[in-house]
Order: sequence, then C-alpha cells, then structure tokens
Amino acid sequence: MKTYTVQFLPDDKCVSAAKGKSLMEAAAVAGIFINNVCGGEGVCGKCRVIVKSGKVTAAPNIFLTRREIQRGVALACQTFVDGDVVVEVPPESRVSDIPQLASEDAVRFGRGTSLIGDDTEFPHSPLARKVFLAMAAPDGDDNISDQDRLYRELRKTRELPILQTGLSVLRTMPKLLRKSDWQVTALLARRGETAELVDLDPGDTSNTILGVAIDVGTTTVVAHLVDLNTSLTLGTQAKYNSQIRFGDDVIARMMYANTPAKHKELRDLVVGDINDLIAALVVETGVRLNDVHFVICAGNTTMTHLLFGLSTDHIRRDPYVPALTTSPTVRAYEVGVKISPRGLLTAVPCVASYVGGDVVADVLVTGMTASEDVSLLIDLGTNGELVLGNNEWLVCCSASAGPAFEGGGITCGMRATTGAIEGMTLGSGGEIQDCEVVGNGKPLGICGSGLIDIVGELLRTGCIDRSGRFVSDVCDKHLRRGDADVLEFIIYPGESTALGRDITLSESDINNLIHAKGSIYMAAECLLDYMGLTFADVEKIYVAGGFGNYMKIPEAIHIGLLPDVDHSRFHIVGNGSVQGAKMALLSEKALDYIYDRIAGAMTYLELSTSHKYMNEYSSCLFLPHTDIEKFPSVTATETKQGT
Amino acid sequence: MKTYTVQFLPDDKCVSAAKGKSLMEAAAVAGIFINNVCGGEGVCGKCRVIVKSGKVTAAPNIFLTRREIQRGVALACQTFVDGDVVVEVPPESRVSDIPQLASEDAVRFGRGTSLIGDDTEFPHSPLARKVFLAMAAPDGDDNISDQDRLYRELRKTRELPILQTGLSVLRTMPKLLRKSDWQVTALLARRGETAELVDLDPGDTSNTILGVAIDVGTTTVVAHLVDLNTSLTLGTQAKYNSQIRFGDDVIARMMYANTPAKHKELRDLVVGDINDLIAALVVETGVRLNDVHFVICAGNTTMTHLLFGLSTDHIRRDPYVPALTTSPTVRAYEVGVKISPRGLLTAVPCVASYVGGDVVADVLVTGMTASEDVSLLIDLGTNGELVLGNNEWLVCCSASAGPAFEGGGITCGMRATTGAIEGMTLGSGGEIQDCEVVGNGKPLGICGSGLIDIVGELLRTGCIDRSGRFVSDVCDKHLRRGDADVLEFIIYPGESTALGRDITLSESDINNLIHAKGSIYMAAECLLDYMGLTFADVEKIYVAGGFGNYMKIPEAIHIGLLPDVDHSRFHIVGNGSVQGAKMALLSEKALDYIYDRIAGAMTYLELSTSHKYMNEYSSCLFLPHTDIEKFPSVTATETKQGT
Repeated sequence: MKTYTVQFLPDDKCVSAAKGKSLMEAAAVAGIFINNVCGGEGVCGKCRVIVKSGKVTAAPNIFLTRREIQRGVALACQTFVDGDVVVEVPPESRVSDIPQLASEDAVRFGRGTSLIGDDTEFPHSPLARKVFLAMAAPDGDDNISDQDRLYRELRKTRELPILQTGLSVLRTMPKLLRKSDWQVTALLARRGETAELVDLDPGDTSNTILGVAIDVGTTTVVAHLVDLNTSLTLGTQAKYNSQIRFGDDVIARMMYANTPAKHKELRDLVVGDINDLIAALVVETGVRLNDVHFVICAGNTTMTHLLFGLSTDHIRRDPYVPALTTSPTVRAYEVGVKISPRGLLTAVPCVASYVGGDVVADVLVTGMTASEDVSLLIDLGTNGELVLGNNEWLVCCSASAGPAFEGGGITCGMRATTGAIEGMTLGSGGEIQDCEVVGNGKPLGICGSGLIDIVGELLRTGCIDRSGRFVSDVCDKHLRRGDADVLEFIIYPGESTALGRDITLSESDINNLIHAKGSIYMAAECLLDYMGLTFADVEKIYVAGGFGNYMKIPEAIHIGLLPDVDHSRFHIVGNGSVQGAKMALLSEKALDYIYDRIAGAMTYLELSTSHKYMNEYSSCLFLPHTDIEKFPSVTATETKQGT
Repeated sequence: MKTYTVQFLPDDKCVSAAKGKSLMEAAAVAGIFINNVCGGEGVCGKCRVIVKSGKVTAAPNIFLTRREIQRGVALACQTFVDGDVVVEVPPESRVSDIPQLASEDAVRFGRGTSLIGDDTEFPHSPLARKVFLAMAAPDGDDNISDQDRLYRELRKTRELPILQTGLSVLRTMPKLLRKSDWQVTALLARRGETAELVDLDPGDTSNTILGVAIDVGTTTVVAHLVDLNTSLTLGTQAKYNSQIRFGDDVIARMMYANTPAKHKELRDLVVGDINDLIAALVVETGVRLNDVHFVICAGNTTMTHLLFGLSTDHIRRDPYVPALTTSPTVRAYEVGVKISPRGLLTAVPCVASYVGGDVVADVLVTGMTASEDVSLLIDLGTNGELVLGNNEWLVCCSASAGPAFEGGGITCGMRATTGAIEGMTLGSGGEIQDCEVVGNGKPLGICGSGLIDIVGELLRTGCIDRSGRFVSDVCDKHLRRGDADVLEFIIYPGESTALGRDITLSESDINNLIHAKGSIYMAAECLLDYMGLTFADVEKIYVAGGFGNYMKIPEAIHIGLLPDVDHSRFHIVGNGSVQGAKMALLSEKALDYIYDRIAGAMTYLELSTSHKYMNEYSSCLFLPHTDIEKFPSVTATETKQGT
C-alpha cells in the first residue's frame, strides 16, 4: 500500500499516512486533536480543515459551501489521503489541550465546605492507609508466625475482620521484618468488602501516602492528587478525554468500540489520559509516583466500562444492560494505570447504563440524602442525569439532551474554552451591548452557557418568538439566509471574530437547544410525577456538570431549562464527580455510604418507556413552555416588557 | 570448564557433568535418585555407589572399609567427577519411584468411615462448586447489570455474603451470557473468608468438577483425585518427594534451602512432584486437567513453606518462627501447580514451626475434638508430633525423633519399600524364626517397623539388656566387631541377602532407636503433665504417619515407644494428612472447623524450653523405661520369661 506524507500547519508536524487514511486519523497520529462531535460519521461538520496543497479524495457533504470547497476547506473525517498533502487545522476545529477547570470553590454548600474530618459524618479513614508498627522481636514465649504477629499488631488499633495478603508480600515479609528490626510500615487498603495488607516497607514511611481521585468525564478527565494523611489536595490537573476524536458523546464512543481492537483503542486512550494526569501531578508537586497507592475514578457507566475494559455493547442497546454497576477493586496495573506497583484502583459504583458513578458522586457531595427536605440534582452534559430524593428515598433517570450544551450540533458551537462566547447582552433590536468571551480575546464560537444566554436575550428582546422562530420585524437587519435557505442571526460579523467568519445562530441551532432543554425539564417533571410531587415540594435544586458552572440560572429559567422557582433554591455543584470520588478516597464511611445509601438505594426510572415523557415532551418544545403558567416570572418579565 | 560423561548402570543412562560435580548431582540430572539422608553432607553413608571405571576424586569418610574402597564403592555425595566415569547404583542406595501406599481402609474409626455427607457433622459443600444457572434474559422491566443478575441468581440458593469476581471473568461475561442464552455454569470457590466467582462456562457443565487433596510429606507425596459432586475418590497416586536427594528430614532441606536459588530448587522439585501426580491421576482416570479446579495440600510447616515459596530460615532457628501458619488461597499457577487456568490452591493451616497442616488434618480425621474423652494423637515420622485433647481443649508439641523410624541413621536402615525387613521373630538365642520382608524377596535392609520389631525381640530374648547393650552370653554367636570396633548383631548373613552383604544391627543403631522412642514417649508425658493428666486418663491413642501403618503396637509398647495401656485403646490413622485434606476439600464446614476448632484452638508447647523434658528425657533412654513400673505388661512378660 502506498504511503504519503501529510504535513499539518501551523504546527508543522509531518506524519506518514497510507493512501485512503482520513485526515482525521493522520492528525491523531500527529498528536493534533480535531473536533469530532459525531465520531467521524461526517454528520456534525465540526472537523473543518483547509487542504493547502496535495491530492485528496473527499466524500460529499452538506456542511461546506461551494466557495469553501474552492478555498480547500474540507471535513477531516471525510477527506482521504491520495498523495503528499499539506493541511491547515484552524483554531476552531481544534480540541485544545487543557480544558478550563471549575474552581474547587464551586462546592460551597452542604458537605462541600468541610468534606472529611473527625467531627463530620465521614471521619478520616482513607481507602489506603500506612500504619507504622514497632513490634517486639519474637522469642521463645511468643513465637507466633510473622503473618500472625503483623495481623495481631494491626488489629490492636483497628477492626479488620477479613485481612488478606498477596503471596509476593508474604514471600518478602520474613526477611524484611528482620532486616528492619521489626519496625515496619504496613500499607493497608480497602478492597471490596475486605482489607488487604498491600505492601510492607522497612522502617517508618507512614508520613507519605498519596491517592488520586479522578473524574473520568466523556469530555474532560480531571485528577486531584490527595495527601491521604492530611486530606489536603496537593494538585489538580485536567485534560480532554483523548477518546473525543472518536465522538463527543457516549453513544458515538460505544458505536466505535464495537470490535475488541477498537474497544481496546478507546480504553488505551483514557488510560493514557489518566497516566498523563497522574504523571503531571507527580511532577507538579514533586512527589514520588511510588507513593501513590490508590486511585478512585468516578465516571458515567460507559466511561467506567471502557476504563475497566468491559464491553459497552449492551449499554447502548435495548434493554440497556451494563456489565456491572459495582466495579471491582483491582491492581492499577491490571487496567494499565501507573502508580506504585501494588497500588489499587476502583471506581465509584454506577446505578444503571445511563446513571453513572459521576452522578452518584454528585449526590454524595450535595448531601441531599442527609436531609428530610426533597432535593433535585440535575447533572447537565451531553447526557442529562437527574436525581430526586431525600434521606429516605432516591429516584433517578437519564435524559438524552444531545450535545447542544457542549456546543455540539450548533453551527458555531464550541466547548467552553478560550474564544467561546459564554454570555451576551442584546439591545432591543438584537444589537450586542455586552459580550463575555472566555479569555477575553476575539470570539471563536458559542459555548453552551453562551447559547442559553443568547437565546434568552433573543427571546427577551422579542427577536425570536416562543417557538424559537425569528421575528423579522424586530431583528431583520441581523438576519441573513444561510446555506440550505436557513435563517441565521449574525451575532458577530466576520471582521470582529478570531475566524474572520461571521458567528451566527440559526433557527435550527435554536431548535436543537429547545429539544435539549425540553428533555431535561420533562425528565424532572417525570421524576416528580412518579413521586406525586411538584417543583413546589423541592427545597433545593443542585446543578452539576462542568457546563453547570458557567450557566446563568435566570437565563436557564427564562428558556425553560430550569423550573421557575426562587433563585435561592439553586445551588451550583461544580465538579461533584471528582469531589465525591475524593470524599470516598478519604473516608471508607463515605464509600460505604455510597454503596448502601446512594447507589444501592436509588430507583432508576426508564424514561424511554415512560408514557408521560412521550406524551408531554412536545409541550416543552416552547420557550419556556407551552403552559406559560409554569413560568410566572418569565410571564411577569414579558408582561413588564410588553407594557 | 571441562565436562565429562557419566554413565549410570544398570540404567545405562549417560549425562554430561562438569569436572568437580558430585556423582549425586550427576545422578539427579540422569533422573536417578540416590538415598541422601543427610542432605549431601557425607555423614549418613546412605548413598553408596560403585565406580566401575573412570577417574574420580573422593573426600575421605568413615563409612567405607578399605576393601569396599578397593572394590570401587564410594559415597555419591562425596565423590567428584574427574574424567569419563561409569557408575553402578545398587538397589539399596536408590529411592524407588513409587512408595507403598497405606490402604485407605486404614481409616476405620471416628470420622473415617463416612467422612462427608448430609447426615454428618460436615455436609457436602466442596471448596469449589459448579452451579448451573438458567436465567431469564434482561428486559426493560429487569435490566440490572450482568454481574448483579448473576449474583442475584447465585444468592437465591446459597449465602454468599462476600462474592468477588476477577476482572478477566468480568470482561468475558457479557458476551458469554448472551451467546449461551443466559444458561451458564458458574464455578464458585472458597477463597479465604470470601467466595469467588472463579469462572463461567456456557451451558450446563455442572456435572464435572474435580479437586485434588495432597499430602505433601517430607518423604512421600500422595495425591487423591476427587469428584467434588459425588465425593468419590477417583484415583490415588504417590511418589517420593524429589527433595529427598537434598536430605531426608526437614532440617536438612531447610539447611539446603539457605539461598534463594536453592530454595527455589526445592520448591520446583515438590511442585514438579505435585504436577507429576496430578498428571498421572488425570491420565489414569481419563478426566480433563481443565476440570480440576481446586487443590488443597496438607504438609508439615516446612513443606508448606517450600511449596508456597516462603522462607524457611526462621523455622529452623531459635525461636522457630514460621512465616505464616494460615496459608493464602492462590491461583494454582502462582505456585506453579498445573490445573485449570483459574483453579485455586490452598493448604491446611499449620500451628507452629514443627506442628503442621498434616497433624491438623490428622486431628480432624480422628474426630478427637468431637468427644469429651481425652485422646492422644501421635504422628510418627522423622519428626514426631503429638496432640492431646478433647472437645474443649487441645495441646500439642513436636519432638525431634531423628530419622531412625524412617530407617535413617541405622547401619542397614532403609525406607519401608521392597526388600525392607518389617517384622521378625527371633529364637531365644537370637536366631531368626520368622521374617517379614516387603515384597517377600530377599531382604535389603531394615525399615522403621522392622527395627522396632527386632529390638523388641532382642530385648524379649535377652540378647540385649534394658540399656540396649548386647548380652554376649546369650547371643555371642551372632555378634561380630564391625568397623570402629562397634559390636554388631548379624541379622542376615550376606549369602541370604539381596546385597550379598550382611544385614546387621549395631549398638549404635539400637541407641539411635532408643533416643527416637524416648523423645516421643517423653513428649507425650510432657503434654499430659502440662494438663495434669496421666496415660490412664487417655481414652484413645491415635497413631498416624506412614510409618505408623506398619508398626506393631505390642512391640512399640515393649520398647517403650508407646505407653503400656490396653491395646484396644490404640487406633491406626493411616495417612490422616491426605484424608483430612480431602474432608476439607469436600466440606467448607470441615475447613471452618479446622480453622476455628483445631488449628486456631491448639496450644503449642515448646519442648526445647521445657524443664520437665530436659530433666526427665534421660529416664526414657532405657528399654522400655528407667521406671519399669510404667510398663507393667512388659515387666509381666519378662517376669514370665524369667521364671
């Protein structure tokens, strides 16, 4: 097979590619990650590149104008090498290396302020502990076996009903005990429902023991390095999940992972990300990798399956059965994660195929299960997960919101990184009065929170009606007919953008957002209905998920994503996934609580078989809702404006 | 380094050996095992070979006469290759391949007759079980995870509080469940205090599940293949422990195993023996190796340590501390034992450095812990172990008897194999009236039971006095002066032996036996004294150990090895080690009983620090005892003879 050279600009990276390889694949080899919302199916149009020279073949597509094609613009996933090629990858098509991290300060309520401590519900008892043992040497009156001596000493100060030790540790134990004059440090760890004597060190090394809590998100992987003695977070790192190039959402990933080789490819990518983050944390904080003894991950069910190398085939097919919800505790090396050689790894348990460990962790962090008051948790991402409950019961469901909140499926959508419009104030005729851009430079596109803001503003200013259609009387001067004759609102003219191309919003984009927000709102109504409650019965509404950090609550209410209740009832959780994982890492009681009181106690409501969901979903496809009575504050605003 | 060819006769096997290698080592390479009681130290004289031609160098030794040296006789461990050599290995120097097996029928008392069954204390609940599960496929109303579905089904019929499954099984589970239409067979096994879902088969394979119970003896390794469904023993195999060439007793083995390489050499040998036996069982019975899922071994503490690759350095040194007494349950392949790929291996727990799992198994088999009556168990071998107790308490100790009972340290001693004199009746002047030889051919030497018989006869006929010295008035015609001027009793003249050499017994041999029997008897007295009891309080005396099968109780009493109580109180256990291991293999309750009521309940009495033992031992160095009042029946016999 012929191979050619593909050069990428402006990086100036060259790779070899066999004839017929897509530019997307060649870019991945070059370490350049290109947006790939649809998983390389050619249906999202987010992977635009410019072929500067050389021969390629391309499949036809609906995303590019004739003029663009003449300029060399191509979709990387649908364009194939047929000679030596030079390709430019523009900024808006790139997955940047470092995602924005929500500040830890986002957790400012419930259990967030002081997660772990002896005066709290979850005393400090990390999943891995080091215990220094100063033992008397055996003599004629006390010559029990080395193992029994160790166990006896360990059990003097703690309950360890079932204690296991691996053969390799037992083999080195006798010599080590004597060389260190019976002064050793035992590394104890929680392993499922048992304890393991994981390793022995000579002397006292108990002052150094580290763990890592990881949020394995579909989009972003976030890792916190934790001192397990002090509970202090020593460092945090984040990067995009490298699986992104095979699709933005879990469905795309699972569709890709339909052969063992491709499944392993995705697994290797996320394991590589985890290793990169841990390595970065170790370098950043100047600690030793060998002092990291426990990793706990929280992720949705698909991410958890991919991490452990478990088939996802049945998660994505009716009746949506995961291989497991309770993850095993394994040696980290068994899944390819590099920490200390005998270090362990586990994951926060999932509930069902579409309610994962990230949501379980969210629930722990909110503390909603500790209160008699009913709370609602909404985790907003590509998939929306909702949990309703209190200290006696929990019900949950999953709503497929589509990628709009992550900027997917939107003409000029992008993730919430540098250049993303995340907020906007419009004048009454649709002209920009104020604009917030991540990084404060020229805008590149619109992220999820910006989209909500803009649509809210368009609605408030009367530029769109409640069905999401442009009211040309009001905003005629900002409208144009785009490709396929779709009406587009020009938000930023090309000359003031970082792209040199207009940033626009089409009726189709607005429609995508309406479907996304409608599915979330309807899911919440279904949960309430299932329990015979209404929003009036809900004391607190927790908004979780990376996107939730940037979203403005009033705007989200205004478009009908969130219910119209007093703003003081809303609480932003931030990255509850990594925070909850960290709580479990630092307290066995928290992990037990997760198993018994959260994951094990949650009733899963399948919306795909819910009549209410199916019948009433369409009533949510208005701004904010068909039944405007449900949104009195929105009505009040409009009335006020109308006067 | 120069290498030469060593040819062994009559086997006609040739091997290469570097200059300076001992003939013992060369023989081992050729697969010829030569007696090696002392571990190659040149102090037992049991490894005689005849150098027929070629050049060797030899260290001086006290075992060979000038005439023998002229004939080419040499000690294989002290003779070194210095040219191409032809060596003959005579039969008496060989470790034969297949030891005699005690009949299973030896166990005819207590729990022996019907070890396992639903109407017994230990219901059938083997350590590995196969459970066929016919599950309903998941649907929208019941879409719990695959793992949860399996666990739910397994827990419908049995209690499994802690159930663990390995990652590799979890990875294959989803596909396997669906391919087999939710009809699968789960392999469940006991793993320490938890249960493991070891493996899954498609369809119903529950009718085939095998286990192996192994007695890992210092001298002999015995394996029983067991159908875990029916409890039937399908086959038995035995072979000598290949470690024998590095010494007959555990001390010699441990001294050899003082470097990691030599330790591993011993470990590989016993693992090889176990694999040979299992392979032979599989071939003999026509089953599949992959259907063997669990192995349980019972052995003394040293053998158990060598099997698991644990250091024995501290077992043999004061204060005699084993690495462990409770063995882990590991994958058989982790220790090199070949059964099904995920099959497990464990060992019956030990009590102390010199009271091992073999003795614990003996105790289980006797049923002595089920009775209010006090019983005494004596396990006779190179090391003697004694256990005293009833259903409320157990005390045990170990007495170093030396190798006399195994034929070691005796001029013409040998193991109880073909050619061994195992019983003898003498006339009043010391002439042979009757002789029992294993295999009924010409005699080769004297085994332990023969030694007891002969010494008893010599005593009874007045050929020796109670201190073990020859009474020349009585047996002058049978006596001669041997090397080093030691008096020897000629039992068989050279012309009627298989060797063409006299079979003799020296005063030194008798003295060795007296020390051996004295140490056992004294140990029993110490145990009784510790509990404030006497032999009159002991209802049953169990005699265990391979040697015990052949020993005649009256003769053993006569020389003062066993106490002088009514013969009906004695019970021969046979190979309690393999029987007890098999009971544990077939019943979790039996294993629990071993942990809780036997190994975990036994008080170990250290005789090496016992004042009574030290002070009174010398009183046992008479035949039968200094205090003849303790042996009224012996006194009666002698009185009768005296009249």
